[in-house]
Amino acid sequence: MQLLWLEEEDVISLLTMDDAIAAVEKAFFDHGMGQIQMPPKSYINFTKYEGDLRTMPAYLEGQDQAGVKIVNVHTRNPEIGLPTVMALLVLNSSKTGAPLSIMGATYLTSMRTGAAGAVAARCLARASSKVVGMVGAGVQARTQLLGLSKFFKIEHVIVSDTSIERAKSFEKDARAFQNCDYQLTTDVKDACNCDILVTTTPSRRAVVKESWIKPGTHINAIGADAKGKQELESNLTKKAKVIVDDIAQAVHSGEVNVPISEWVLKPEEIHAQIGEILTGKKPGRISEMEITIFDSTGLGIQDVAAGFAVYRKALETGRGTKLIL
Amino acid sequence: MQLLWLEEEDVISLLTMDDAIAAVEKAFFDHGMGQIQMPPKSYINFTKYEGDLRTMPAYLEGQDQAGVKIVNVHTRNPEIGLPTVMALLVLNSSKTGAPLSIMGATYLTSMRTGAAGAVAARCLARASSKVVGMVGAGVQARTQLLGLSKFFKIEHVIVSDTSIERAKSFEKDARAFQNCDYQLTTDVKDACNCDILVTTTPSRRAVVKESWIKPGTHINAIGADAKGKQELESNLTKKAKVIVDDIAQAVHSGEVNVPISEWVLKPEEIHAQIGEILTGKKPGRISEMEITIFDSTGLGIQDVAAGFAVYRKALETGRGTKLIL
Repeated sequence: MQLLWLEEEDVISLLTMDDAIAAVEKAFFDHGMGQIQMPPKSYINFTKYEGDLRTMPAYLEGQDQAGVKIVNVHTRNPEIGLPTVMALLVLNSSKTGAPLSIMGATYLTSMRTGAAGAVAARCLARASSKVVGMVGAGVQARTQLLGLSKFFKIEHVIVSDTSIERAKSFEKDARAFQNCDYQLTTDVKDACNCDILVTTTPSRRAVVKESWIKPGTHINAIGADAKGKQELESNLTKKAKVIVDDIAQAVHSGEVNVPISEWVLKPEEIHAQIGEILTGKKPGRISEMEITIFDSTGLGIQDVAAGFAVYRKALETGRGTKLIL
Repeated sequence: MQLLWLEEEDVISLLTMDDAIAAVEKAFFDHGMGQIQMPPKSYINFTKYEGDLRTMPAYLEGQDQAGVKIVNVHTRNPEIGLPTVMALLVLNSSKTGAPLSIMGATYLTSMRTGAAGAVAARCLARASSKVVGMVGAGVQARTQLLGLSKFFKIEHVIVSDTSIERAKSFEKDARAFQNCDYQLTTDVKDACNCDILVTTTPSRRAVVKESWIKPGTHINAIGADAKGKQELESNLTKKAKVIVDDIAQAVHSGEVNVPISEWVLKPEEIHAQIGEILTGKKPGRISEMEITIFDSTGLGIQDVAAGFAVYRKALETGRGTKLIL
């Protein structure tokens, strides 16, 4: 028996944002149709090393695509020159259970998250959106802007980061795919003067104030992915129309987890899961004045769908290393 | 970054039963000490293909060994020449989260299960046990007898299987490590005339009757690993002293799951987890006349402990294929 090993460089060369968007949109649609299986993420905690390991099995029934992502978060890794997050994705045949491919999935994770933001903004942001505000200018911010650039005629990007050097580095990289005006700042408030706001920080306190957000803004809240994390003031989630990727995950670990734990937001006040909007079960934006928030926690079905897109392309192009099992 | 790929042949050449027993005993001991993390197995069901995919993350805190096994069960695979069960094991550094090694884990799964049976029998069977009865003569039966051969002076093995050809093939293979008298039969009752009985069938009805079991017998009940599976008559679990590997898994999917669902056995009547006996928290066998049952469901900590034993040996011997992540 053989399986295909794809290292990060293979995945980087094979996975385009267009592929990622197509895969993630299909995954969200199937989620909306109830045609998926996604057991809860399980966590192992390495308390003494300030890290954890997350296991994310998922199955898209309609596409017959199954797999498991294994991903760590070790916040002290950069001190020793390692990435905070490293991911592997195993794809399995639903028909025989055999492993088909194993791939480095760190880049894929960032791409499928950018794709999720793009799909959500296309559903929820005003179509005329021209100004994008970024809170946080790290790796995730790059793929978020890349995703948005596929659907919006962006004229102006306001990049805020606690480090102006990081903001500069972001502009340099982002100009490769999005050439327009860039405004760099260390003040989050400046970035909020936009049509689409993207937050990608690891914050545990609200860095975006309710009063800074104009009517009609759409917010992609990407950073919060664990209990206690929060980027937006709790009142903002109360005031806005909130759409999540998966209600169970979001309540537990998404942007809404803190407002819910504070009793500011009730779970039943969450408007919809994104798949319910894509499948037409619930409306998206219904006025130019609404504030909409997409709370992205990151789903195993996004990884598996994007992973199969990579695997197919690898088979077509002969890329990767065959391993004997 | 590099990680080590070990194919099944590598694992077969590296993993001895002595290694597996040492690893599994340590895993059970740590389980008894409460020094492990083992989120519940999660299942994806491929209903239309009569298969499933199980994800088993585990962490031995004391050994700093973490990993995830991904294993399928597709009962119709043999029709197309594929194994029913195929497993992969990913080992991760607890310190950095980085994947260290990926290995084929089908052989490892069978070996760690044989090791569990051996460790349990050493705790629970009479030390003078000489006669082993086997119900089922498949792959799992081989590693069970191999494990027992490390601790007992076996003089006689009674092998029962619905296919006498399978029993013959078992004897041929088993003689390589256990040379003694073999008795082959298609009658389960014959095999029950023994000191240690080992059941390794995929049965969903009790094939071993209570009245066939002599006082003093120890039974390793290996086959039942999913809801509805059962090899021993429910009354037998009521009458005997029952020891499980993990109470939560056993109640859900072990040999005791059917007796409990029938209200014949109460969960609180389960005597102990094997780790509680290894750590001296609870007594094992206390008379020559007791019937003892070890209900093995198979734990992620067994896989991870055995996997690290393989990984270390691979590093020492230079075996395996380095992959760039």
